[in-house]
Amino acid sequence: MADPRFFTRAGPFTLRRLAEIAGAEIGNGADPELTLEDVAPLEAAGPGQLSFLDNRRYVDAFAASKAAACLVHPDLAGRAPPGMALLVTRKPYKGYALCAQAFYPEPSPAAGVSPAAHVDPTAEIGVGTSVAPGAVIEAGARIGARCRIDANAVIGRNVQIGDDTRIGACASLSHCVVGARVHVYTGARIGQDGFGFAMDAAGHVRVPQLGRVIIEDDVEVGANVTIDRGAGPDTVIGRGCMIDNLVQIGHNVHLGPGCVIVAQSGISGSTKLDHHVVLAAQAGITGHLKIGAGARIAAQSGVMRDVEPGAEVCGSPAMPIRQFMRQVALLGRLSRGKGSGGDGRDG
Amino acid sequence: MADPRFFTRAGPFTLRRLAEIAGAEIGNGADPELTLEDVAPLEAAGPGQLSFLDNRRYVDAFAASKAAACLVHPDLAGRAPPGMALLVTRKPYKGYALCAQAFYPEPSPAAGVSPAAHVDPTAEIGVGTSVAPGAVIEAGARIGARCRIDANAVIGRNVQIGDDTRIGACASLSHCVVGARVHVYTGARIGQDGFGFAMDAAGHVRVPQLGRVIIEDDVEVGANVTIDRGAGPDTVIGRGCMIDNLVQIGHNVHLGPGCVIVAQSGISGSTKLDHHVVLAAQAGITGHLKIGAGARIAAQSGVMRDVEPGAEVCGSPAMPIRQFMRQVALLGRLSRGKGSGGDGRDG
Amino acid sequence: MADPRFFTRAGPFTLRRLAEIAGAEIGNGADPELTLEDVAPLEAAGPGQLSFLDNRRYVDAFAASKAAACLVHPDLAGRAPPGMALLVTRKPYKGYALCAQAFYPEPSPAAGVSPAAHVDPTAEIGVGTSVAPGAVIEAGARIGARCRIDANAVIGRNVQIGDDTRIGACASLSHCVVGARVHVYTGARIGQDGFGFAMDAAGHVRVPQLGRVIIEDDVEVGANVTIDRGAGPDTVIGRGCMIDNLVQIGHNVHLGPGCVIVAQSGISGSTKLDHHVVLAAQAGITGHLKIGAGARIAAQSGVMRDVEPGAEVCGSPAMPIRQFMRQVALLGRLSRGKGSGGDGRDG
Repeated sequence: MADPRFFTRAGPFTLRRLAEIAGAEIGNGADPELTLEDVAPLEAAGPGQLSFLDNRRYVDAFAASKAAACLVHPDLAGRAPPGMALLVTRKPYKGYALCAQAFYPEPSPAAGVSPAAHVDPTAEIGVGTSVAPGAVIEAGARIGARCRIDANAVIGRNVQIGDDTRIGACASLSHCVVGARVHVYTGARIGQDGFGFAMDAAGHVRVPQLGRVIIEDDVEVGANVTIDRGAGPDTVIGRGCMIDNLVQIGHNVHLGPGCVIVAQSGISGSTKLDHHVVLAAQAGITGHLKIGAGARIAAQSGVMRDVEPGAEVCGSPAMPIRQFMRQVALLGRLSRGKGSGGDGRDG
Repeated sequence: MADPRFFTRAGPFTLRRLAEIAGAEIGNGADPELTLEDVAPLEAAGPGQLSFLDNRRYVDAFAASKAAACLVHPDLAGRAPPGMALLVTRKPYKGYALCAQAFYPEPSPAAGVSPAAHVDPTAEIGVGTSVAPGAVIEAGARIGARCRIDANAVIGRNVQIGDDTRIGACASLSHCVVGARVHVYTGARIGQDGFGFAMDAAGHVRVPQLGRVIIEDDVEVGANVTIDRGAGPDTVIGRGCMIDNLVQIGHNVHLGPGCVIVAQSGISGSTKLDHHVVLAAQAGITGHLKIGAGARIAAQSGVMRDVEPGAEVCGSPAMPIRQFMRQVALLGRLSRGKGSGGDGRDG
Repeated sequence: MADPRFFTRAGPFTLRRLAEIAGAEIGNGADPELTLEDVAPLEAAGPGQLSFLDNRRYVDAFAASKAAACLVHPDLAGRAPPGMALLVTRKPYKGYALCAQAFYPEPSPAAGVSPAAHVDPTAEIGVGTSVAPGAVIEAGARIGARCRIDANAVIGRNVQIGDDTRIGACASLSHCVVGARVHVYTGARIGQDGFGFAMDAAGHVRVPQLGRVIIEDDVEVGANVTIDRGAGPDTVIGRGCMIDNLVQIGHNVHLGPGCVIVAQSGISGSTKLDHHVVLAAQAGITGHLKIGAGARIAAQSGVMRDVEPGAEVCGSPAMPIRQFMRQVALLGRLSRGKGSGGDGRDG
């Protein structure tokens, strides 16, 4: 089980209740009143514990698991060991996520403003919001209800934050409007000037950055991420986007809803991603491009042209993934033919 | 116009005054007493607003713009719509930058040290400098006049900072000497130990890093940037360098004046960039190299050898950009010839 | 010598004492009572100063050096100039590191908790530990003896920290157990949620991250690094690992002892590195891989498969370094043959 110093477990829950939470059906005649006390991975789970099978690769671990109950896709339910209660759903990982949230709800810190926080008297703090020691809330900021502002975070002048949003320790926000149920992780930087200046041999000249950052509802912004405010238009992070650690988002960038931006990738100024684009780790997109809905950009790619909806691209410069694979294979063949002593291993 | 919650507009200004500010000439017989109240992009600008045309690509938007006045290069002035007042200059973007700075000057925070800041009694704070709540100024630090130390920033022991410099929220500085008119953005880390140790199977042994970071005047250091102090020599950032977010600068690196280092790029230890080098996003330079004046390193490049002044390089390992383009084109041709079903799109 | 505003020198030391510190032998009949006052590089060193020769490339500088004494490998000792005292060792750089640590010991800040720190009454602070202004120590945290918690750092609820560990300014830790003699640099983020969620068109669903971060003894974690806590298992950083700035470590990653992770590289979830792996700058490893002991991953590589112990890989996708070099050479030849005007320079 999770280390009780750091995690507080709720429950227990009956199988019936977990089926409701997960949107699953109770399978194989299991007892709806079976009591579950925790979640655990397939290999570690035992009596009283709920696990899940999401990937056909782990079907052997499933068949051998001692978990009391398991979330499973209907196609794989038949592989369950005898005596395991099943929660059958076409989305077992989503079901697991929801059940795990039930067992381990976000802790609610003591509501109220710490006397060791620095809150400007003109700032508004919603009901049930906690402000931790060392947090600074500047003049005119408006923070919704049930928010959590962690230690040493800084909320700049006139920033607006919706309900149920969490701002992590040491994060800083300025020039932005943030929605509800957003989680800004530790050390993220939101709203600073974009990288805009007139290059000049006599000294580059800063162009004032007159836009904002708009973060819609249900967004996650990872640790030490940087999101610059717009140069005139706004920088916009669409509803439900998930942004991993150390990502850079340039000025005027728009992310449509549901995009997933993996660690250490970067998006240059004025590029627009339609909804549900996935940008894998350490990838980059140059400025002023359009990336179509559902496109997938492979890790370490360098995108220099628009990408069609649903396309998968890879490489630097990026190209369709099949083309990239052909080039990699071709180079391998050619260099083995030409070279000597090659052993054909490729890492 | 810019959101008044976050931006305070100055002005209005006459066309005559803006011509002085921009170093431009009033064209096409426009009235020098015409009053301008704001800046705006070509498509959005209307009566009372100043715009600019910097790129021939936007000449149609210029011809159709309803802006009251526009900064424009002499070669394109003839394309102006009737009734638009012109400010003619060979550097219209620089002119726009200067005018926009006039309309939107940096806000001056209330001068003085917040009672919620933690300033060591031996630190010296210049006249007109503001120190925000939660900022920590350690013993012996000397901060110039009219500086701005934002919330929760940390200025280490004996650090020196020149006049008119701004240190962003949650940034931290140690072992460094910083010039005038420098802007260190939120979360930047300056002066920590470089990555130096003697590798040893029995346990790597730290080598004390005995140098400093020297930041000359008019430098910008982006959000969450890391600049390590020298190992013995200093790490030096030359006058007027612009460093974007999440850049890594290793120990003993020297940047000459006017370099531009774009987001997420990195420079390894002891490498020296001459003046006005441009390092595009996510590029890297290995250690102990010399990069000539005005060289341009393309995005995601990996530079493993010295680069000549004025050269443009691309790729990993980096090569002259024409050679890189030839290799990309060649691989495309070869793989299409060998493969089947290729459609020739490249992303 | 090092700037006395930032560095406090100890000593002087006799040659005899430095030989003990370095594990070296006094060579060429030098006087063991010779007094040394400082360290310096070969070209700069003079009377009273100790230098080192670690690399055959600098043997001319060694032969011309005016250093009073020098650490040198036995094979090169014969090249010493007349009158230079020698400390002979097979590990001169390690010897230098140890001597430099003696001349420039870590400064010990005033012990005790600053009245401007925010320490929860249930936290435990060890003897001789200093807590700087603005630092926040949350409920139940346990911090060992002789630690140093710098300004505006945040130590989360129930976090445990061993003896002699330093947490840099503005760093934040949660859900973690940290060993002895660890140095977490400024702005590092340890213990936040891993990037785990069930993707869903109706809105991605967060999967609670129920593991911790375990940092063993003698580890360094660079500035603005991010280390996510495990999803269920822990994220583990093995004894003596050196992690440079702006590195990303995903959930469930295990680093064996003595790994070196250079700046801006990233390791995706659940990947395991055996001991003494070196990951050079801006490299990436995808998830769920095994990297063998002593493997070396070149800068900017993208590792997509397991790597054998001792292997050296390069490229994206990564391959054995000899194969990578053959491909680079082949492409160069082919593109010069096909193109025109190529000059054969490669950057």
